[in-house]
Amino acid sequence: MENFTFFSPTYFVFGKGTENETGKYVKRFNGNKVLLHYGGGSIKKSGLYDRVMNCLKESGIEVVTLGGVRPNPRSGLVYEGVKICKEQNIDFILAVGGGSVIDSAKAIAIGAKYDGDFWDFYKSDRLVEKALPVGVILTIPAAGSEGSPDSVITHEDGMLKRAAHGECLRPAFSILNPELTFTLPAYQTACGAVDIMAHIFERYFTNTPEVEVSDRLCEALLLTMIKETPRVIENPENYDARANMIWAGTIAHNDICGVGHVQDWASHSIEHELSAEYDCAHGAGLAVIFPAWMKYVYKHDINRFVRMAVNVWGCKLNEANPEETALEGIACVKAFWKSIGMPTSFAEVGAKEEDIPKLAAKCFDEINGDDHIGNFVQLKKDDIECIYRNAL
Amino acid sequence: MENFTFFSPTYFVFGKGTENETGKYVKRFNGNKVLLHYGGGSIKKSGLYDRVMNCLKESGIEVVTLGGVRPNPRSGLVYEGVKICKEQNIDFILAVGGGSVIDSAKAIAIGAKYDGDFWDFYKSDRLVEKALPVGVILTIPAAGSEGSPDSVITHEDGMLKRAAHGECLRPAFSILNPELTFTLPAYQTACGAVDIMAHIFERYFTNTPEVEVSDRLCEALLLTMIKETPRVIENPENYDARANMIWAGTIAHNDICGVGHVQDWASHSIEHELSAEYDCAHGAGLAVIFPAWMKYVYKHDINRFVRMAVNVWGCKLNEANPEETALEGIACVKAFWKSIGMPTSFAEVGAKEEDIPKLAAKCFDEINGDDHIGNFVQLKKDDIECIYRNAL
Repeated sequence: MENFTFFSPTYFVFGKGTENETGKYVKRFNGNKVLLHYGGGSIKKSGLYDRVMNCLKESGIEVVTLGGVRPNPRSGLVYEGVKICKEQNIDFILAVGGGSVIDSAKAIAIGAKYDGDFWDFYKSDRLVEKALPVGVILTIPAAGSEGSPDSVITHEDGMLKRAAHGECLRPAFSILNPELTFTLPAYQTACGAVDIMAHIFERYFTNTPEVEVSDRLCEALLLTMIKETPRVIENPENYDARANMIWAGTIAHNDICGVGHVQDWASHSIEHELSAEYDCAHGAGLAVIFPAWMKYVYKHDINRFVRMAVNVWGCKLNEANPEETALEGIACVKAFWKSIGMPTSFAEVGAKEEDIPKLAAKCFDEINGDDHIGNFVQLKKDDIECIYRNAL
Repeated sequence: MENFTFFSPTYFVFGKGTENETGKYVKRFNGNKVLLHYGGGSIKKSGLYDRVMNCLKESGIEVVTLGGVRPNPRSGLVYEGVKICKEQNIDFILAVGGGSVIDSAKAIAIGAKYDGDFWDFYKSDRLVEKALPVGVILTIPAAGSEGSPDSVITHEDGMLKRAAHGECLRPAFSILNPELTFTLPAYQTACGAVDIMAHIFERYFTNTPEVEVSDRLCEALLLTMIKETPRVIENPENYDARANMIWAGTIAHNDICGVGHVQDWASHSIEHELSAEYDCAHGAGLAVIFPAWMKYVYKHDINRFVRMAVNVWGCKLNEANPEETALEGIACVKAFWKSIGMPTSFAEVGAKEEDIPKLAAKCFDEINGDDHIGNFVQLKKDDIECIYRNAL
């Protein structure tokens, strides 16, 4: 196991009706003038918007609103939010939505405390050290941004999708009420499930030896997702199945199952180019890319893929031919995602074979001049092209 | 799943040599005048004491020391510590040791910020809302106090062993260096392993339905302990095995695997009377009590015991007679603890059959007049006597 620090100070508030305590938690973190940030109209239709506004007002909190965040959130709205925060002395940002809204809120939080362009932190490895506090009311379990120190934004100049990091980007509080996810359509629910599972895979596939506790935690979360996702798809109002999925999704990405070892993250980079270019859902893109990545790299450490096959998917170990077990496990990943309605090929997300060289080249743009991505196996441009082709 | 809040803001610093950063972390939490609290002479013999003192001094931190914490920490030393803190304006307490030292430090931290008797919070359910910040350098993985909001102290007046709770009792930081545990004798290591596993069992045995994610996390941590403990006993300087055990022990008790459901905690109460009365190690007492408790309660929910047997101990499900599988799982718990050198009967920890009625009666003393303990099965005095007898 490698040395690490782990600091997850987010105050998680989980369960029925918890959004009605929003005012109390904003106050707890000294919020007096809030930017309420959200996406489309769904929170207005559901009545959540009104409930939250009333709750904030009852707590004597001033509110400015900024809606319009879209999937794969863009820089344009971030610049607008930063301007509002600076002009109106906003001291707290409340994100009501899924990962896109939270990530956009975090970007605004960075910009509000920074004299330069917020994008400076996305186009480089520079850690964010100052940001406004962000609170979350989660409506889509997927990105894990409600517990993570990260934000991903797509810059409209070049459609580059990049991430910023910093401990201060962990939300001050996150309100997780499974009831708020009941209306999430099956496709979006499944995209969220893939994203959650992908966050675990990115941590599970490591070369760091002797990380049993992380391995077991990763497997625990994957087993939970495999049990609960089909139940949620079948009955969107199954409170307990939703609850388990949400909490698994949060833990999957607050890094409790990722500390002490080198993580991979190649598949996320490879996928980011798909969703940036074709505007497909991030989860759908991951469902296409991850099995293709697995097939390309599994020979690097067959035992690890065998472990996944046996411990996560319940495959029987073929002792005479462990490689077969490894491949069976990879097939299980693909079959599971297919079974919950996810695409598993390039064309299904609108991606085009002829774009592959361009997509592969973009994976490196501006990333500090590195010529590879990933850690489990370091991938160069040719490797990435092969993985895209595996996904055709 | 039930509503919950989860807030674990401890800054965990894990790995080789991390104790040499103590000064930096004390400063991070605004410590300028520190009470360094420790146990016997082992940290002096090992050189840890000198290293930490030097590190603090290099950071310009003033240090007052108070050693002498013993297992099952007593109120007397707490009163002494509180007096020092108040007289000398201590603003930070650094606990260097295991659970006893940390719990004693937390008790001092409570008393230092309270005008009355610190014991007020132990003899009642009253939550602690103010305490000095406590930092930890862990030398014994067991109690989980390095990440928990709890402290257990034995009052010398009546030898009552009681707990206090409060979010402010979570350590500000905890430094976890597996190397510092290399010199821990096999018996103490095994006691720690039992304590860690017991913390998981107290959470795993619940009547709250549909808590798959917690169930899986609990199983993940138990599987880790079952793999790593024998490796540590066999080779005390196996860094990675120690590392996995320590991190599992911390997570086992910071409550990440216990949220969203009612926990049990009867076995801890029943054991506390053993270690308070006979001064045996807490882990040794738990190794005696927990299997006895399991045998007494398993019929309440045979499926849960079957699940443990199959998922944790790898037992084959006897479909014709699941009760047999449940009992096999319980036998595995006992056999595993025996295999790592733990006592599993009353006499082995110096307990006496004739004391049973007195021990059972003491389980209730001062606990708000309740006439039962435990939640998985509510136990009255007669039940507790039966469990003690199961342990003979």
